[in-house]
Amino acid sequence: MNGFIYNIPTKVYFGDHLNMLAPELKKFGKRVLLTYGGGSIKQSGLYNRIVGEIKKAGLELHELSGIEPNPRIESVRRGVNMCKKNEIDVILAVGGGSVLDASKFMAAGAKVDFDPWLFLSEKRPVKKALPLITVLTLSATGSEMDGGGVITNLKTNEKLGRADDLLRPKVSFLDPALTYTVSRFQTAAGAADILSHIMEEYFTTEPDLYMLDGIMETLMKTVIKYAPVALDDPENEEARANLMWASSWAINGFITGGKTHEWSVHPMEHELSAFYDITHGLGLAILTPRWLKYCLNKNTMPRICQFGINVLGISSQLAPALVAKRAIDQLSDFLFKTLKLDRTLTEIGIGDKDFKQMAQKATRGGVIEGFIPLNADDVEKIYEMCL
Amino acid sequence: MNGFIYNIPTKVYFGDHLNMLAPELKKFGKRVLLTYGGGSIKQSGLYNRIVGEIKKAGLELHELSGIEPNPRIESVRRGVNMCKKNEIDVILAVGGGSVLDASKFMAAGAKVDFDPWLFLSEKRPVKKALPLITVLTLSATGSEMDGGGVITNLKTNEKLGRADDLLRPKVSFLDPALTYTVSRFQTAAGAADILSHIMEEYFTTEPDLYMLDGIMETLMKTVIKYAPVALDDPENEEARANLMWASSWAINGFITGGKTHEWSVHPMEHELSAFYDITHGLGLAILTPRWLKYCLNKNTMPRICQFGINVLGISSQLAPALVAKRAIDQLSDFLFKTLKLDRTLTEIGIGDKDFKQMAQKATRGGVIEGFIPLNADDVEKIYEMCL
Repeated sequence: MNGFIYNIPTKVYFGDHLNMLAPELKKFGKRVLLTYGGGSIKQSGLYNRIVGEIKKAGLELHELSGIEPNPRIESVRRGVNMCKKNEIDVILAVGGGSVLDASKFMAAGAKVDFDPWLFLSEKRPVKKALPLITVLTLSATGSEMDGGGVITNLKTNEKLGRADDLLRPKVSFLDPALTYTVSRFQTAAGAADILSHIMEEYFTTEPDLYMLDGIMETLMKTVIKYAPVALDDPENEEARANLMWASSWAINGFITGGKTHEWSVHPMEHELSAFYDITHGLGLAILTPRWLKYCLNKNTMPRICQFGINVLGISSQLAPALVAKRAIDQLSDFLFKTLKLDRTLTEIGIGDKDFKQMAQKATRGGVIEGFIPLNADDVEKIYEMCL
Repeated sequence: MNGFIYNIPTKVYFGDHLNMLAPELKKFGKRVLLTYGGGSIKQSGLYNRIVGEIKKAGLELHELSGIEPNPRIESVRRGVNMCKKNEIDVILAVGGGSVLDASKFMAAGAKVDFDPWLFLSEKRPVKKALPLITVLTLSATGSEMDGGGVITNLKTNEKLGRADDLLRPKVSFLDPALTYTVSRFQTAAGAADILSHIMEEYFTTEPDLYMLDGIMETLMKTVIKYAPVALDDPENEEARANLMWASSWAINGFITGGKTHEWSVHPMEHELSAFYDITHGLGLAILTPRWLKYCLNKNTMPRICQFGINVLGISSQLAPALVAKRAIDQLSDFLFKTLKLDRTLTEIGIGDKDFKQMAQKATRGGVIEGFIPLNADDVEKIYEMCL
């Protein structure tokens, strides 16, 4: 076992607690920058409710809308300028992972004189950041409780991630009812995203805490049990609540424990969505079973079998090679049949022309030290398996 | 599902990180009150190491030793006086739950002019508290990550608990290796304590998050798997690490989610140890299976069966009544045969003479609204089942 540091101070209001929004904002100051994406929060009435709470409390409201999925550095720059110009005290991000991620780099960018892209491209240190409060409307990225974010620069075809404890939201409002209106596709892609965050930690040959293994298995079972329920019955509170709380715990750092390996599927997917602007969760779904199949060998088989037995309920009486194969097949069936996500890159109009370049970028010219080590050739082969 | 607020900001260094002790203390000031129990931290060398780190960093060290198991209000008062007299900036508690609990009320008592017992007897509000840092040497109470503590007043035969977010440690150092020297009996009693914290939350007829159910089941399986390993092989890192991290998560508030029911076994046990000064975990072990047996009815049977099947591996093909009976029997076997804890109150020299008074005190003249409602008569009957 490796040692580790656990540090997740985000306060979470789970359920309908928006009456506490203004009191929490006020702790950080008077001038609030409200950030959001398209018009969905206006259609749902959430926008009016939030603006009402802010105005009732006498806080000064500024707004930045139009943050796109796979959020762009241009949006971050707009936010940074607004924060500086209006001397914003606290950012209130309302939306899914894209809005939250963009807002994290606005929070950091507001405190420096350089272009915020340098936090991502050069890993410039985050020394200070404005406080961030979030109201989540999509269970997927876990950005509501972690310190990470991913920003896209379409000019350079780059989608880069960065995490820092200072970027962690101070307070997050998680109300499952706010996800009742999430579309079928986004619910499915979100479920694939949550599952991938857990799998990136779970599939390792490193020694690990049994307790964390069990918790990861529980989180995966939670997604597999409730994503189909939410698809069939979008206003099922039990399903939406389980998915929402699982999304936070999949990536807030708890399940990582002392593991040190790199993530594999996320860097491969980031190139896909950097080049083709696809939905992140969909890219992860297409890649994950192929990656597992590519990783399957004598060393990795026990872990894939453990997944099959403990998460998918495959009989432990079968031969390990068969359990492992079934586990990957059942995972594919879940993603492509149950969740009805597209099965191949071909189906979403992506061919092999950029694979070589994407593979180079995904591995940064080196090796991803994940479940098995992957160099650019390996990544290219995995992309090809997705056609 | 009820809503809830999740707020667990304690930072945890898991593994050997004592080099970070002085830097963390320094964040809060210069004058440190080191609190501990008997001589075990001196025998193990931990005392010298900690004092070395503090002195090397140029901090001002004050010491309060002799905090007893089932810590007394007199120890808390001594600590409060030392904090006030020496203008202590931060308390460093080194030990198990008793030292940590006592230190919490020193931290609160240092900020008020009234007797600290009033935090417990009158639930006087905690408005401020000195920061508390802990180094844990026993996996049991979870005090290292929660805001609760239990203090004994032998003059009034009272053992009272109290929790407040301000009492939560700022930083806790959890090094499994520091528990290698914990005795067989304390390891077993600690395991029973951890298990009880989870069971107090798990056994409910309230609607609940599936995800949290699975996590509670994982935590219970972790204790059941690793307590025997630690008994047989006290320096088994894997076992000690799993027990230690499970102890924190059993009671830090995460698994509670939106549950609102009261705990049952702890108030019954607190009277046992208030009257007879027995080890808390031992009292919990003796009471728990009898309490479950007393609670077993048509409404509670499904939950007891779920425990039997998911935690103890009992076949789901059996009739529910049989599964429930076996679950309680297997739990008893674990506690009394595997952990070798005493099975009855009689064996530890406790008769029925105070049962009526203890039952009145445990229920405060009313009803414990737990797995099933328990009034004083019920509690008296459960005590009698323990003879």
